[in-house]
Amino acid sequence: MKTSSLTQEQKEYFMREAIIEAKKAEAIREVPIGAVVVLEGEIIGRGHNLRETTQDATAHAEMIAIQQACENSGSWRLENAQLFVTLEPCPMCSGALLLSRVEEVYFGAFDPKGGTAGSLLNLLVDERFNHWSYVESGILAEECGQLLTDFFRELRRLKKQAKKEKKN
Amino acid sequence: MKTSSLTQEQKEYFMREAIIEAKKAEAIREVPIGAVVVLEGEIIGRGHNLRETTQDATAHAEMIAIQQACENSGSWRLENAQLFVTLEPCPMCSGALLLSRVEEVYFGAFDPKGGTAGSLLNLLVDERFNHWSYVESGILAEECGQLLTDFFRELRRLKKQAKKEKKN
Repeated sequence: MKTSSLTQEQKEYFMREAIIEAKKAEAIREVPIGAVVVLEGEIIGRGHNLRETTQDATAHAEMIAIQQACENSGSWRLENAQLFVTLEPCPMCSGALLLSRVEEVYFGAFDPKGGTAGSLLNLLVDERFNHWSYVESGILAEECGQLLTDFFRELRRLKKQAKKEKKN
Repeated sequence: MKTSSLTQEQKEYFMREAIIEAKKAEAIREVPIGAVVVLEGEIIGRGHNLRETTQDATAHAEMIAIQQACENSGSWRLENAQLFVTLEPCPMCSGALLLSRVEEVYFGAFDPKGGTAGSLLNLLVDERFNHWSYVESGILAEECGQLLTDFFRELRRLKKQAKKEKKN
């Protein structure tokens, strides 16, 4: 059984950094999801969702943060690292966490439609793979989820408005 | 039920292209796995495993091929595209295939220890996700698998030799 190496205060501190990343996505009308990779108390990778901006299906917050962390540490092995992400990881990002051997994964809101760190599956604790992680959900969950709720509400409002304007 | 849009000849042709990619990886001592993305009969993305070279845990053949295909097509949506890969995709690459909405996935050899397109799981046909693909295994499977067998045999030989030299 894996355990957390962090205090509640540390968890919330780093999740706030992930939220800062999510807000960078929101500012450019990307779905607001952010992530950071932490090693020995230092942030070594940051990322926010850039799918629309880059038109790259793989440009998720976690992927960008992991790639940056690998680059900064000079190694594809992120053993002893923690990842913080505002939304439960999808299969791609869960897979990248396994491959990079991230030790601890903390996420904010659950993604009941596509999450694979507890919702639809839990790829991160499947012992058939050659790595598994400590997983903790619900860190600043309300704030993380609210960002998404507000974003999609605004999106629906804009769509409705555009439709109305088209009619007139 | 999804079906294939390709003839056996086309499937083997494109798998040979994926094998060409795998051999590029082999030539630089990377685990020999290669992939291509095909759209309307044209290869729009190519990739081979570059994990050690780049020290990036996410640098799998499929990821690189998908990223290149997104770039070339100017869209993260690879609907109507096919992906060919010499080895069964892992969770990360299976996830990327779902996210990029690749229509048909063809692989060579099974990966019984980590594959999630039939071996441990089949993420590509799980209808709870918002996309699923046609999946076909066993295209030039022997050739694809042999590349890996030979690579790991040579790796073991080199390790043994290094150990011997260290002793002397």
